[in-house]
Amino acid sequence: MNLQAICHIPKSNYAYPYKENELHIRLRTAKDDVDQVEIIHGIKYDWKNNERHVMKKILTDEFYDYYQYNIICEDSRIGYYFGLTKGEKKLYYTELGFADKFNDDFAYCYFFQYPYINKVDVHKEPSWVQEAIFYQIFVERFFNGDVKNSPPDLTPWDADPDPKSFYGGDLKGIIDKLDYLKDLGINGIYLTPIFQSPSNHKYDTVNYFEIDNYFGDKEVFGELVQRAHDRGIRIVLDAVFNHCSNLFEPFLDAVEKGRESKYWEWFFIEDYPVKMDPPNYKTFGHVAYMPKLNTANPELKEYLLSAIRYWTTEYNIDGWRLDVSDEIDHLFWRDFRRVVKEINEEAVIIGENWHNALPWLMGDQFDSVMNYQVTKLSQDFFARSEISARSFEKGLSSLLIRYPDQVNEAMLNLLDSHDTERFLYTCQGRKEKLKNAAAFLFGYIGMPCTYYGTEIGMTGNYDPGCRKGFDWNQEHWDMELYQYYKKLISIRKKEKALQYGDITFLSTDSLFVMKREYNKECIYILINQREDVADYNLPKSSFEYNYVKELLSES
Amino acid sequence: MNLQAICHIPKSNYAYPYKENELHIRLRTAKDDVDQVEIIHGIKYDWKNNERHVMKKILTDEFYDYYQYNIICEDSRIGYYFGLTKGEKKLYYTELGFADKFNDDFAYCYFFQYPYINKVDVHKEPSWVQEAIFYQIFVERFFNGDVKNSPPDLTPWDADPDPKSFYGGDLKGIIDKLDYLKDLGINGIYLTPIFQSPSNHKYDTVNYFEIDNYFGDKEVFGELVQRAHDRGIRIVLDAVFNHCSNLFEPFLDAVEKGRESKYWEWFFIEDYPVKMDPPNYKTFGHVAYMPKLNTANPELKEYLLSAIRYWTTEYNIDGWRLDVSDEIDHLFWRDFRRVVKEINEEAVIIGENWHNALPWLMGDQFDSVMNYQVTKLSQDFFARSEISARSFEKGLSSLLIRYPDQVNEAMLNLLDSHDTERFLYTCQGRKEKLKNAAAFLFGYIGMPCTYYGTEIGMTGNYDPGCRKGFDWNQEHWDMELYQYYKKLISIRKKEKALQYGDITFLSTDSLFVMKREYNKECIYILINQREDVADYNLPKSSFEYNYVKELLSES
Repeated sequence: MNLQAICHIPKSNYAYPYKENELHIRLRTAKDDVDQVEIIHGIKYDWKNNERHVMKKILTDEFYDYYQYNIICEDSRIGYYFGLTKGEKKLYYTELGFADKFNDDFAYCYFFQYPYINKVDVHKEPSWVQEAIFYQIFVERFFNGDVKNSPPDLTPWDADPDPKSFYGGDLKGIIDKLDYLKDLGINGIYLTPIFQSPSNHKYDTVNYFEIDNYFGDKEVFGELVQRAHDRGIRIVLDAVFNHCSNLFEPFLDAVEKGRESKYWEWFFIEDYPVKMDPPNYKTFGHVAYMPKLNTANPELKEYLLSAIRYWTTEYNIDGWRLDVSDEIDHLFWRDFRRVVKEINEEAVIIGENWHNALPWLMGDQFDSVMNYQVTKLSQDFFARSEISARSFEKGLSSLLIRYPDQVNEAMLNLLDSHDTERFLYTCQGRKEKLKNAAAFLFGYIGMPCTYYGTEIGMTGNYDPGCRKGFDWNQEHWDMELYQYYKKLISIRKKEKALQYGDITFLSTDSLFVMKREYNKECIYILINQREDVADYNLPKSSFEYNYVKELLSES
Repeated sequence: MNLQAICHIPKSNYAYPYKENELHIRLRTAKDDVDQVEIIHGIKYDWKNNERHVMKKILTDEFYDYYQYNIICEDSRIGYYFGLTKGEKKLYYTELGFADKFNDDFAYCYFFQYPYINKVDVHKEPSWVQEAIFYQIFVERFFNGDVKNSPPDLTPWDADPDPKSFYGGDLKGIIDKLDYLKDLGINGIYLTPIFQSPSNHKYDTVNYFEIDNYFGDKEVFGELVQRAHDRGIRIVLDAVFNHCSNLFEPFLDAVEKGRESKYWEWFFIEDYPVKMDPPNYKTFGHVAYMPKLNTANPELKEYLLSAIRYWTTEYNIDGWRLDVSDEIDHLFWRDFRRVVKEINEEAVIIGENWHNALPWLMGDQFDSVMNYQVTKLSQDFFARSEISARSFEKGLSSLLIRYPDQVNEAMLNLLDSHDTERFLYTCQGRKEKLKNAAAFLFGYIGMPCTYYGTEIGMTGNYDPGCRKGFDWNQEHWDMELYQYYKKLISIRKKEKALQYGDITFLSTDSLFVMKREYNKECIYILINQREDVADYNLPKSSFEYNYVKELLSES
């Protein structure tokens, strides 16, 4: 046995409460290295009645096998350790290491423990995330529904954007197109920022309490939420709290008054006078027009949280996406969660973390993050054909084991966004690759999110190319792609196994194969990334099911 | 290379800010498996100017080597990955796995990142912990300073205790003996609970706002803190918030009024009427007289935190030890920390966690825990001679790598307590074993804590044997042991290297050897657990120092 490969970490993605009475325990071993893994667990104050169970191998990646066992427990004060068998060899793995024999008299000193599942510590996702199908709208480029509030000097809708272009897209435009979205089948919209801001992207906020004039006003926003809700569509807004605009009033005040300004501590300004080039204050990236906010400052914190309170309460929105969430302090996010969930326990909180986000996803901060790691893998496998189906599933396995199950169920899975090139662009226009990737995404665990226009065949390079105006001239649409997306969405909405099912990877040399299973229903997603035809024999056990039906077939 | 052994976890004990401008990065490899480990790190928005440094091997345990590099950074938005060399073989290790080549153009997708060091997220220990020398007093058994407040039916001071004995020890008794403690040399006292409670141990609180009548009153407690402070001795109190006494007024109210009681939700009562045998409410362990508190209930939480506020503010105490801290919810502890640190940033927070406590020690909850894992290792090595010096240092290494450096510096290290057998008892009375263990403890990183009476040779089995009355008849003392303790304490207080030094283990087959090094001073702690004499040649490099002095020698 490769003992050095064996890993369990208490109170982490390897040991977490799924519910108040359900504890998930995972163990990692080297790949194909161990015949059987057992868990021995018991109530720590009643250890003599401990139980022994075989753990299930749930995932495998390049180097490791991962095992899981879900303990259903009335008394959640749990001790546990592991039994590993390879041929004749049998070893125990405890918090103190490995041993051939285990002295149960000293169990308390040895075992791993989950000391208590306190209900408030359980990471509870909103109840609707597994049925969610999201659509991301870059507001300025979706539809101009009210020409009266358009900015001057509009770029023609069908011209290519530059970083400063304005096209006039607005909230009324989204209202006008809600029936389109309803018909497409999505049931959640993530809007890029809508608050007052001088830019087209509005990631540099000037006023957190006002809708941007070019986008509309509070009335039209209220109407948007209401009408979306009428159609069963949830609305998630973008919270940009890492930084603001250099035209944000408090920043202007600090620039003007220096240390006398009561807002001086809202920012990280080194010296007076404040300089812009280069900035003598902290910024997002090196962008002078985006001063970093000091979210640890109590007044600023209360100001930002009151904005969150305002929009969540008054407009009954369904959640927040958090811009540059990994650069803001954890204390801020914990208070943020408290504020949001007290108003609406069913609101979702989605971070923008491009890297391993476990420290934000243990139940005290976010529900989910934008799953750019799946984006990257999808680019590598589907768009660029750089990795094999087996490598792709190994990559996915590494990501799935990284987070608790309830986090995987709530991840925002995307192929592209306003911060990537369009997926079809990465595919070099090869639509069949996008279709394969989309079939994967709608079959995968987590919330699929479609970036506006990807469903009609829009393409474009990294910003600004990925931010073109939505082409409403249906004659320009790839209708076949559009119908395919509608079909995928309708299947996802209908099939509980795709929403709630356990996932198993079964790829072959030529096919990516993923099985979703729920309540005796089982769906196989078979995807061929090669040019030639590939066969796949459904495992015999599948025929224990009453019928086999083809949900979708493309060639 | 054993790639499966290699481990790095972002934002954990493997990557944590030590200061606002100092990031500690650790990497684990299989033992003796890699020739060199390098870290490549850079500012993520300015990646092209990245730097490459060799990491230092800091610790080794049974299976692994551990490397560390401390990044000093003005801009803390850091990306990093690792370079591993073994013979001709060179590999890179990134968040996405291993690669022979690393494409720097895609660095952002690959590297591990520490996204930002926000000052409020940095785990800041109280400035005094590295100079702290603690003494634990079980109040009822230290000294009866005021016979007027003694309970009736006292057990004679020198009789063996049973679980219900009362001896009359009190706060006045501690005041009376402050000069003894000052002379011994300690500078911190951890008191077991002092609030109103029917038991002798007082871990079942009846009133969180009153001193127990048998222990004294607020005036005498205020005097104790004042007089201790006058002598440079800090006072840490015991916070028992997991459970209370069944005589706690709110519990009695719930018992009487059932669901009508406004305190019903302060507990976990299943049904009305409330039954004690067996209890139909949640308890600590299975102890009916200790009902578990629902620390998530907002009113109870505010009640308990107001008690914390009261004692911390009004009596200027220096910290809290937290009973059964691992069974209370994390939200409670985060608010607890906020309350305590807002009053006194220099107050210490010490959990009672017997197992891996990292999830409580990342800066948002505790500063420290009682280091019962070091107790266990010390029992195995010093008291029971069950493991070798090398095994002992491997065990210590596993523990040191488990936590960030600032946590190791603040750990409460102990040989025994009111919850263990006395160390001398575990040694079967062999004093030289206790002396070796004490020499280790006072040389080790963290706050050494002496359980009352261990320094004079008190012995006794697990509770109640470990809770005898302190024997103030000096004729009964082991004066040689007592002088030895005084010597150890005085050396610890004098030598900065023992307080602040880096630690290196250098054990041989026959000797436990530990080096502490600080500011060009270097102290070797050599401990022989065997019967025969052992030699040790100080490494040549030691003679680069100006002089070598023997601080302590025993044979």
